[in-house]
Order: sequence, then C-alpha cells, then structure tokens
Amino acid sequence: MNAVVVAIGSELLGPGRRDTNGEWLIGRLFDLGIETSWRAAIGDDAPRIARVVRAALHDAGVVLLTGGLGPTEDDRTREAVALALDAPLTRDPAMADRIVALFAARGRLAGPRQARQADRPYGMAWIDNPLGSAPGMLLERDSGLLAALPGIPAEMRAMFDASVAPGLAARSRGALARTTLRIAGRPESFVEDLLRDLYDREGTETTILASSGSVELVLTARGTDAAEARARCEALAGAMRARLGIDVYGADDESLAVVVSRLLVARGATVALAESCTGGLLGAALTDVPGSSAWFRGGLLCYANDLKTSLAGVPDEMLRAHGAVSEPVARALAAGARSVCSADFGLGVTGVAGPAGGTADKPVGTVHVALADAGEGRAVRLDWPGDRALIRRRAVTVALDLLRRRLLA
Amino acid sequence: MNAVVVAIGSELLGPGRRDTNGEWLIGRLFDLGIETSWRAAIGDDAPRIARVVRAALHDAGVVLLTGGLGPTEDDRTREAVALALDAPLTRDPAMADRIVALFAARGRLAGPRQARQADRPYGMAWIDNPLGSAPGMLLERDSGLLAALPGIPAEMRAMFDASVAPGLAARSRGALARTTLRIAGRPESFVEDLLRDLYDREGTETTILASSGSVELVLTARGTDAAEARARCEALAGAMRARLGIDVYGADDESLAVVVSRLLVARGATVALAESCTGGLLGAALTDVPGSSAWFRGGLLCYANDLKTSLAGVPDEMLRAHGAVSEPVARALAAGARSVCSADFGLGVTGVAGPAGGTADKPVGTVHVALADAGEGRAVRLDWPGDRALIRRRAVTVALDLLRRRLLA
Repeated sequence: MNAVVVAIGSELLGPGRRDTNGEWLIGRLFDLGIETSWRAAIGDDAPRIARVVRAALHDAGVVLLTGGLGPTEDDRTREAVALALDAPLTRDPAMADRIVALFAARGRLAGPRQARQADRPYGMAWIDNPLGSAPGMLLERDSGLLAALPGIPAEMRAMFDASVAPGLAARSRGALARTTLRIAGRPESFVEDLLRDLYDREGTETTILASSGSVELVLTARGTDAAEARARCEALAGAMRARLGIDVYGADDESLAVVVSRLLVARGATVALAESCTGGLLGAALTDVPGSSAWFRGGLLCYANDLKTSLAGVPDEMLRAHGAVSEPVARALAAGARSVCSADFGLGVTGVAGPAGGTADKPVGTVHVALADAGEGRAVRLDWPGDRALIRRRAVTVALDLLRRRLLA
Repeated sequence: MNAVVVAIGSELLGPGRRDTNGEWLIGRLFDLGIETSWRAAIGDDAPRIARVVRAALHDAGVVLLTGGLGPTEDDRTREAVALALDAPLTRDPAMADRIVALFAARGRLAGPRQARQADRPYGMAWIDNPLGSAPGMLLERDSGLLAALPGIPAEMRAMFDASVAPGLAARSRGALARTTLRIAGRPESFVEDLLRDLYDREGTETTILASSGSVELVLTARGTDAAEARARCEALAGAMRARLGIDVYGADDESLAVVVSRLLVARGATVALAESCTGGLLGAALTDVPGSSAWFRGGLLCYANDLKTSLAGVPDEMLRAHGAVSEPVARALAAGARSVCSADFGLGVTGVAGPAGGTADKPVGTVHVALADAGEGRAVRLDWPGDRALIRRRAVTVALDLLRRRLLA
C-alpha cells in the first residue's frame, strides 16, 4: 500500500512557501508503514485539482488531500473531488443543519457560503472536525482510501489522527524503519560499486545522495511489524558498515564535526587550525558543536600570504618555491597552528576557491589539506570543480575527515 | 503562461524532508512573472514520474524537473521523460566523449554509468552544466518549454539562471515585480511600526521577515506590464528607504558581507578579526565573498583564553578583571587583530553562545562586538537569548554592520 499526498491552496505556490501540511502527513504515513510515492501542492483550481487527484487515485491506494474545504469561493476541493470521482455533488441536509447550529451556538449566523460546507460528492462519508466548522470527507476503497481534510494545521492533524489513521493502521500490514549512513572520503560511484548487490535485499530500499564531499545512504526497510522493520534496517546497515568500514563516519543526523568532537573528547586531545581559502569555515564548523571549548584551542586565518609567514611561520622560501597552494605549505600551516596554539593536532587548508585565481597548473578547485601531529602527519589534495561555496564546504569535510581518520588510527 | 515544478528523488519523500529546489524554482518563476499551478515531489520510479510529467505537460506551458540526472541506477529522469514524451532514449556520442574528457582531465575514468548521462529523449537539446558532469535537457514547446535540471542545488540554480530563465523571460509578459530591502541594527517591531501605513499601497504587498539580527522586507508589486510592476515596486521601496535611511544595508540578494566588501574596496581599506565565540564564522562570512583577498587580511581564532593573550595580546590582568566576555576584551581583541594582521580595521567578538557557560551576570546570548580603527573605535553589547547557532549568526551580523556603519561615517 502506497500513498499520494496533495496539499491544496494557491498560497502554497507563492515564493518562499513551504508545504508543511504535506510534510507532516508524509511523516505520519511513514510511521504507519505506508510509503508516499509522490506529493503535490496545487492552487485553488477545480479542474486542475481533479486531474491531479485522478492521477493520484490511479497511482496509489491511499490519497490524502488537505486544504480547500472552507466556506469561501476559492475553496474548491469538494467540487474537484466530485469531478475526479465523476460523482455528483450533493448537499447533506443533516450536515447543513449541524453547521447552522454550530454557528448559532457561537451567536453567529450561517449564510449560504457556510452551507457549501455541507456539500459532498455522492458516496463519500463525513469526517468529524472537532476544532472547526469544515468537515472532512472520506471514501473507503478496496485498495485503501481517499480522504480530504481541511488545511488549518491543528484541524488537519486532529482529524487525521482521530479518523483516518486508525483505518490506515488496520489496513497497513507492516511498518517501516529508516536509517541514514554517512560516508566521507569516498566518491558516490565508489560507494555504489561496493554495495550494489545489497541494494535489492528483500524488504529494503536504498537511496544514495552526494553532498559537499560526503555521501549519504538512506536505508528504508519494511516489516510485518515495527520490530521486524527495525531488524531488517539494522541488518542492512550492518552489512553495509562491514564493507565500508572506517569510511562510515556516522548515522542519521550525526554531523562530521560532532563525530570528531566525540573522538577528541575520548582521547583528551585538542586541535588548532590554520585556514587560507576556507577563511574560518573550518573553525566555524568545529565550534558549531556545543562544548567545543574542551578540545578546540583556536586558529589562524592566514588569508594574506605574508600572514602565512608571520602568524603560522610558513617559510618565505617555501611560499616562493611551491606557491601558497601546495602540499608543503598546507603541512607548514598545520604544523604552525599546532605549535602556535599549543594543540595536539593541527589542520591546515590552502586552495583556490575561485571564481578567480585558477591557473593551468592549479585550477579552481585545487585544495591542499594537511594534518600535523607529533609524527609525520598526513596530507590530501582535492581537485574537483565547483562553485566557491561548494569547494570551501568540501575542503572543510575533507579536513574534518582527515582528523577523524587520524583519531581512529 | 503557467508552470508546473516537479522535484524528483525518493529522498524527498522521507519524513521531515523539504523540497527546497522546488521552492527555489517557484520563486524564480514568480520573478519572471510566471505563476506555478502545481508542484510535486516524486520518488525515483520511471513510470510514475512519466505519469506526473504527462499530467504536467497537459496542464502547463512551462514544466521544470529537477533531480534524477546523475550516473547511478536510481537516477530515472531521462527514462521517465522519454516515456512521457513517447520519444526513444538515444545516446549522444559527442556528449559521451565530453563526459569521458571531463573525467580524464581530473585523472579519473568514466565508466558505463557515467555514459548514461549522455542519454536523452530524441528531440531534446542539452543544457550545459558549468559545475558538474550531469547535463540538463531542454525541449522548446509552442506554449513554453520542458526543462530537466540536476538536483544538486548549486548546479540546478546556475543552469536555470544561465540556460532556462532567458527563454522564459522572452516568452513571459511579466506583470509581477519583487524586491527585498535588507535592514540591520533594528528589531522587526521597530521596522513594522515605522512602515505600517505603507503596507497596503495599491497593487503592492509587503511581507516582513526577521532572521539572525537582520530584517527583510519583501515587496511585491503587480502591473499591467513589467515596467508598471517595476515602477510600483521601486516607488514603494523608495518610500521605505526614505524612512529607514542608513538602517537599510542592501537590496534583493545582497549580503551584508558583500556590502561591506564593496565599501572596503571603495576605500582601499583592509580588515582583520579576532573571534572567540563565533570561532571562524565571521571570517567565513567575509571570505564567502569572491575577491575577498583584496581587503581581508586574516584573523585570529582565540577560542582558548590563553590564546587571547598569546595571539591577540589581550592583557592577562584585563581578562582577570573583566572576564573574557566583556567590552574591554572585545576592544582588545579588535585592536590586537588590527595590529597583528596589519589591517586598517579590526573586529573583535567574544560572548556566551551556550548552551552551557551562562551566568546570572552574563547569561547565554551575551556577546560583545568591537571595532578598532586609528581612532577610538566602537563597541556593541548584545543580550538576546537564542540557541547557539542563532546567537553566533547574530553576532556575525552585528560585527559586519558595525564595520558597515563605520565605513559610511
């Protein structure tokens, strides 16, 4: 059993508007073990709503609509559902009386517009609205149901939980569980090649996403109950972790900085940094973690070349011989940060973030990241294109991952 | 001319996931005078995507798809569009060569999966991707166009602006105009009280939003043509600017850092900083601006107290007498950054970002920001509550605004 969720209301299509009702319903369906195949937000236009509802009914057992059930002229959901079902719209006198009584109880007069709320497509049942005047509508289908709920969030949520969820729970054979594995230091295609044969494991689904130098694997598992779904999800995550090993840095919402923080705390170690092209972004990522003062000493933003020498002690000859964007300079920055800030580990970043400054030798996207410790340290070179923001974020991911791997070594 | 926007990717249907690409495209279409009739988010299932795309093509002149163009198996947009158009999917050898060359230039080997990115439905043109390997696809139609763009936000945005927007602008008889005024240093309620009587001006709409220490006024104007809409929008913006004066730092997408950058370039002046609680976030905001090396010298991340002394020269006695979170220390950090990094201006930030570390005297949210120049400098104290991220972002806004006001003095 799968679902389509449609939010109705022209205001949802304005710039900067988010469909929070749809997001909420998708979360609730997921908890009931029902996957959403697609969701839509659509303006108050009856024929258009009807076309989308028809496509939804064709595509999914469960179709949930929210919005467009109010008394005003731009509320067109009743009419649209009637069109989609090819059923006449009929007024229910009992509901019309109820609406009049509801208004009278509040000392108000229900007019012809309120009476429209007593219209429903022939064959649909009412869904009681404990919080307002607009009732919802329900149609039981062999394969699921079609429900129309108001758009006011509190009403929509109360009505879904009281009148729609129980029917869905009874029908849904099963539950869903989900987890996300987070991977750093490997390209998306490497991860996919390594894991492809696990993608189709029974009762599970895997989606892979790349972002700013890290890769996310979203694992969804179905089961006859929550425990089975959870067990399948964990078994798949375990199989993937076994192949990926140290490349997995965390799960679900864990950020790389939080993982690094935990490792530093466990070791009682501190870190400092010297940043050039990232200009503070690495420091910002580390100090975003609450309690970072326990392990973050500080850093040097050596944007101008002379500050690389005066602040971090990068030898002038080295800058001349190799250029500011080079492995020796990244290593010297890391070592300088470590020593000047008296930390156990130092991180250094230098690169060409663009849009200007690239050369044939060192195009935009060339970044050297280094780690300094009591021994020989480590260094990585990045050379993948992108815009300034992406190159900088990727450099931060790689620097954090370099430290993470060192702390696990 | 109206539009349908479809975001593709199973991850968009997970609980708690927001369709930010769709929201962005709707905003851009609006700016071009094109209203969106509906939008959808759909999983990576080719027949289902094809059904939704077919409904979209039936319903709207402009159909924009984003996502599902990557090299992996769950990227099904190419196939789905071919199905929807009833056109064969054909491989373009020229594009396949280009992808191989792109990978080779980065020392990597493009495999058969990468080659899938050279497949397109017969009759569609390519949309160049300046930031990645996945090209987009375009079909011009009598009534508009169908475009498929990648799901990576930076790529999608760059490609829409460069290759799709111009064609839409030429077709649209735009009747909407929008501008945003950006205000720093004033609370939302102050701005609203000052401007309320201008909110209902004919043919316009004003929305006020507060975020991280700045306030945004979004002005929308309608007109019979683009010129009239633009004129109305500008007249309203002008009336608001006249009242707000120097509190308006910029318009539309201008960030405070970009405005500060422009002022520094105009003066031929440089800046350096010393950050404690923001830990690099101020440096990251400044160096986010392309070309920042012309005026950003560098900085000191003095997270640990002893580094405030050893790096920025804050006297030990001062730290003991006033505490690290105090106006004298903020001023000493700013002066230290200015002198150690040889800059014309220095900025210093010290505060309690929380969640721990607050006291009765200096609760979480207490932040001192200072500016050092050749004269007496300036200082500001913030004491608004908030979570760690908000307090840090607000401190950055206030520091940038302090410098902006000084540069305008």
